Amino acid sequence: MNFSSRKIEQAVEEISRLPGIGKKTALRLALHLLRRPSVQTEALSAALLDLRINTTFCTQCHTISDTEICGICSSVKRDKSIVCVVEDVRDVMAIENTGGYGGVYHVLGGLISPMDGVGPGDLTIDNLLEKLATGEVSEVVFALNTTMEGDTTNFYLYRKVKDFDLKLTTIARGIAVGDELEFADEVTLGRSIQHRIPYEQSLPK
Amino acid sequence: MNFSSRKIEQAVEEISRLPGIGKKTALRLALHLLRRPSVQTEALSAALLDLRINTTFCTQCHTISDTEICGICSSVKRDKSIVCVVEDVRDVMAIENTGGYGGVYHVLGGLISPMDGVGPGDLTIDNLLEKLATGEVSEVVFALNTTMEGDTTNFYLYRKVKDFDLKLTTIARGIAVGDELEFADEVTLGRSIQHRIPYEQSLPK
Repeated sequence: MNFSSRKIEQAVEEISRLPGIGKKTALRLALHLLRRPSVQTEALSAALLDLRINTTFCTQCHTISDTEICGICSSVKRDKSIVCVVEDVRDVMAIENTGGYGGVYHVLGGLISPMDGVGPGDLTIDNLLEKLATGEVSEVVFALNTTMEGDTTNFYLYRKVKDFDLKLTTIARGIAVGDELEFADEVTLGRSIQHRIPYEQSLPK
Repeated sequence: MNFSSRKIEQAVEEISRLPGIGKKTALRLALHLLRRPSVQTEALSAALLDLRINTTFCTQCHTISDTEICGICSSVKRDKSIVCVVEDVRDVMAIENTGGYGGVYHVLGGLISPMDGVGPGDLTIDNLLEKLATGEVSEVVFALNTTMEGDTTNFYLYRKVKDFDLKLTTIARGIAVGDELEFADEVTLGRSIQHRIPYEQSLPK
């Protein structure tokens, strides 16, 4: 592309390093910022720097946090004996949004993926095992996505933790609330049938 | 959304103000930056600020420029008697990329769009008329998009400039080079036939 301004070129260059944003989208975003009051760009720029420089990872669950120990791990209301293993902070947020979980989390920081060069050593697995070795945890809930990488990681973790004296669970898979049976895929519907629950449990409390 | 960190929340808030970026995409981008070396975020942040604060609009053609008069308007190689009227700097870049235009531009900075509250007074039309009144321009090329707003603006401009003693042209519309006739839309193919050119002109020089 032939830019009329070096500064636009530089901004487009930097914006298009973000995932899923090409040069054309980057240019559209840059031109948008130019049309807005400069205070918007200043706020965006400051928020990005603040995020990158001043956030840290919770030393207990490895989620992104403003403090050394995150709000969930430091809360007295949370049951520290139940640990839910998730891939990243987005999963923590998704589960927190349901309001239906009272335990704590352990964020792996990714999934085992030989194709992307991510091995078990790149994840926070050792720290999870240390946590389990203290004997304070009674249940581990696996909540990884059912992708190739998720299943691989699940299986690796299962082999590592199966000798500990604890309850191992995984989140229920089945057809979504409100979905119609005839349009559900076979694997999901199969699991829904296979892991059916007592009717009383499905009633709203 | 329930954020584990105030800083993430703030960054997501600011990123999602950009057009076409929702909260989920903003979060994905923020997490991406967190995984990268902080120098990337610093470069992005600085480039955005630099763009917003240090760029200006060329006083002659209103394109975005680092200097008071842009590279095109200040070039002695460009024919100042031909002015191509475009909507914004992206169109300037698109035409510049063809390498086939030797005149200068006039960037309107938008299109007349009553729905969006953009009237003729919000565009650089007065400045265009002043430029034409000097008598130094011999041809005006309309290169606005053929949307409702583009056509409205074209017609408005046509009525304003038709009494000046100059050649008014518009960019050729027709089916694209390489496209097959049978799949072209009727309006486009109709224009292609109607505005046919001497065969010799279509040969590569």
